[in-house]
Amino acid sequence: MDGRTDTRTPPPSRGPAAPAAPGDDAGGRGAEGDAPEFSATDVDAIHRVIRRRRDVRHFRPGTVPPDQLRRLLEAAHHGPSVGYMQPWRFVRVADPAVRAGLHRIVEAERLRTADALGPRAAEFLALKVEGLRECAEVLVVALVDGRERYVFGRRTLPEMDVASAACAIQNLWLAARAEGLGVGWVSLFEPVAVADLLGMPAGAHPLAILCVGPVDAFAERPLLEEAGWDERRPLSAVVWQDRWGATPDATVTPEA
Amino acid sequence: MDGRTDTRTPPPSRGPAAPAAPGDDAGGRGAEGDAPEFSATDVDAIHRVIRRRRDVRHFRPGTVPPDQLRRLLEAAHHGPSVGYMQPWRFVRVADPAVRAGLHRIVEAERLRTADALGPRAAEFLALKVEGLRECAEVLVVALVDGRERYVFGRRTLPEMDVASAACAIQNLWLAARAEGLGVGWVSLFEPVAVADLLGMPAGAHPLAILCVGPVDAFAERPLLEEAGWDERRPLSAVVWQDRWGATPDATVTPEA
Repeated sequence: MDGRTDTRTPPPSRGPAAPAAPGDDAGGRGAEGDAPEFSATDVDAIHRVIRRRRDVRHFRPGTVPPDQLRRLLEAAHHGPSVGYMQPWRFVRVADPAVRAGLHRIVEAERLRTADALGPRAAEFLALKVEGLRECAEVLVVALVDGRERYVFGRRTLPEMDVASAACAIQNLWLAARAEGLGVGWVSLFEPVAVADLLGMPAGAHPLAILCVGPVDAFAERPLLEEAGWDERRPLSAVVWQDRWGATPDATVTPEA
Repeated sequence: MDGRTDTRTPPPSRGPAAPAAPGDDAGGRGAEGDAPEFSATDVDAIHRVIRRRRDVRHFRPGTVPPDQLRRLLEAAHHGPSVGYMQPWRFVRVADPAVRAGLHRIVEAERLRTADALGPRAAEFLALKVEGLRECAEVLVVALVDGRERYVFGRRTLPEMDVASAACAIQNLWLAARAEGLGVGWVSLFEPVAVADLLGMPAGAHPLAILCVGPVDAFAERPLLEEAGWDERRPLSAVVWQDRWGATPDATVTPEA
């Protein structure tokens, strides 16, 4: 499967600080050979981390070493982006006053969301929806200003900037999970308030407050499933063929 | 790191067809023990697949076995979703007439995008931007209709449905890369035209045409980088601290 040849341009160096990082291109493969680039064990690890990733709200005290944080940010920065626009910016929150400001903004939105949920307000308010005060690191992920310049792949789907940043976050999330760190994506906030707090220019747009840090455990199932908020739909309920709602070949979703 | 105990509810069975799938929860770990859940080799594999994922437009003839396609769809369906809304729907395109219809829609948008790009039109038109006629499988990913019912985590950020679907796609993309299959995300299309072609109800919204299939090789670098369209920014250009544009601690982005 690995058909690369020696004639291609070598990848750019990532500088002297990075060579020993996991996933570094310099290690683990030869320039030729027919062995699969990812072993069966590797493939299993990737499927496992996908299944065991959780949206974490319970953190334990601890820290994330700077080199580990950098590695997670590098994973994010290797996300796909439409027209290679790399629309993501990451603001690491180190100042306790800034973190406290974020928490106030999230708490205000939590109460407004409860109001908006009507009959499920009490059920919602009983859920732990963020670990902003306990987690080791907080990262705000935002879309950069000036995105209107990017038309490639976005003329009819401008939301591809959001999609690109989300893919970057998913990279970070999976890498963190593999390294034993929890990540929670908090989207309960007024984006204008977060933009103001962090001094964002007009046009920039915060998408996520990520809580990152050590945890005692990863839950077996998603928290909202454990809490009875909702269930995972069967695959047959989300996969169709050729036409909206049409059942696909039985071999693809045999449980249908 | 794996602090799970025997007292938790076991995960729901995924049915008799799935037990031998890579990543299956039934294999590879004990109920207790202090060994990290993901070995150093596993962590390396996850970082490698993140770095080596490519947006693929060059496919070779071949097929994707149905059980492999299902495994990739399961990986997608294990994406995170705001309020557990699981907004994604996947339409597998098996009918050649439907695939041809998609190609016509993409080609029309390619020409309109070239117009919109002005001075870079010729450069854009020289790029191969999709492999829709060559790839083994085509999947259209769309947001389900009726999403206005979902308020949890979306009251102020309605685009979290797009973000959730993008994370699901990133899961599929990484799993496919590990398994040696290429994936290309085509977003050059008029969403209303794709919705009409596939008979989507009002409110549903297509986000991606995914081309999936065997490839001859994965490029060392992103195609748009190889073609000189743009470059990857250094990490220091996308990571700040406490305030927009403020340089973080040197330990996090040492190359700054």
